[in-house]
Amino acid sequence: METIVKAQPYEFRFEPASTALLIIDMQRDFVLPGGFGEMLGNNVALLKPAIEPTRQVLEAFRRKHLAVLHTREGHRPDMSDCPPTKRARGRLKIGIGDQGPMGRVLIRGERGHGIIERLEPLLSEPVIDKPGKGAFFATDLELILKNLGIRSLVVAGVTTEVCVQTTVREANDRGYECLVLEDCVASYFPEFQRAAIDMIKAQGGIVGWVSTSDELLKVLAGA
Amino acid sequence: METIVKAQPYEFRFEPASTALLIIDMQRDFVLPGGFGEMLGNNVALLKPAIEPTRQVLEAFRRKHLAVLHTREGHRPDMSDCPPTKRARGRLKIGIGDQGPMGRVLIRGERGHGIIERLEPLLSEPVIDKPGKGAFFATDLELILKNLGIRSLVVAGVTTEVCVQTTVREANDRGYECLVLEDCVASYFPEFQRAAIDMIKAQGGIVGWVSTSDELLKVLAGA
Repeated sequence: METIVKAQPYEFRFEPASTALLIIDMQRDFVLPGGFGEMLGNNVALLKPAIEPTRQVLEAFRRKHLAVLHTREGHRPDMSDCPPTKRARGRLKIGIGDQGPMGRVLIRGERGHGIIERLEPLLSEPVIDKPGKGAFFATDLELILKNLGIRSLVVAGVTTEVCVQTTVREANDRGYECLVLEDCVASYFPEFQRAAIDMIKAQGGIVGWVSTSDELLKVLAGA
Repeated sequence: METIVKAQPYEFRFEPASTALLIIDMQRDFVLPGGFGEMLGNNVALLKPAIEPTRQVLEAFRRKHLAVLHTREGHRPDMSDCPPTKRARGRLKIGIGDQGPMGRVLIRGERGHGIIERLEPLLSEPVIDKPGKGAFFATDLELILKNLGIRSLVVAGVTTEVCVQTTVREANDRGYECLVLEDCVASYFPEFQRAAIDMIKAQGGIVGWVSTSDELLKVLAGA
């Protein structure tokens, strides 16, 4: 049944049965105090406001038995899937693969790489482990979405201008219609949060739509 | 021979022999007065300043016999490669595939789809026809770069926050090191131009490097 949510640049229409919630990189190392993100000098308090609204949307999707997928950025322990250029970038003292505050940085299986407890995936919810910023590159995300019959994505997670917008741009090129919930995405840089949201909905929705968790929860409750 | 160009967030090091100039979507319909971009209400005068510095970089690459590639956004005349969601987006009166001011909008072979005369590709320079914003999606760009032995990209073209940054994000995930020349890329929206450039070089160059045509031409002249 077509559902309509108030959005920008105009209303977003979707069939719940062919819509998935995609939660991007809500990993301890990015989101929590004492993690890798904070160690790099970022203020992780700026990401915290996105957690509770994302949890509410997650619960609404679960109540309705709609599809939910999670992503995590990170690499195999042997780092064979990490471009040397990525490892070298930024000339970090402690970088990818090195021992960080919550285990080896961005390595799968380490504590910092895991998703925060409040958004912990259910066993029935696919977790996409991705080596890049975009969740479609070198992953099985597109195959899984196709198998699930998904055509629309509701997007939450961090950070807005890096992994969120990269993934939404990939999805848009592939024909998925994306609704980004602006209170469910967050950035270490308030000006990038604003600009990335504006870029997505500009020029008639050149990349996708933008709304809020409240608007979506209202229509999901009624649907 | 390793070449070093002054850039942000820190100097960009590249081997000219494994570096390509990638010129994104310098098509009549986006760049010229009287085209589709202008018809949509955009001020194409904002893109014009990128043409001359791009031409100078193009000529420097040609003089040095370095790799040059061009991209064009557009679709097959039967539009089998155009997601229906892309065609519907923006609710345009004249949209993709319709008769526009310079032929059918974003259709290959139409006048508006062609690259502007001043940056006309040589027969020896691959032109990548892409159905999306990102030049890696559903194209042979990655195969061609691999065959040419390319590891670094110098990026010019339009528009900065749409096709340029989408492509640079794809390239970065794939391990290419990208140098965006900020005077050779342009946007209809000055605030997006600034923000997209800032997002690329933020956090130690999380997506890539930023410099100017002058800085690059200086080192190419000396190299």
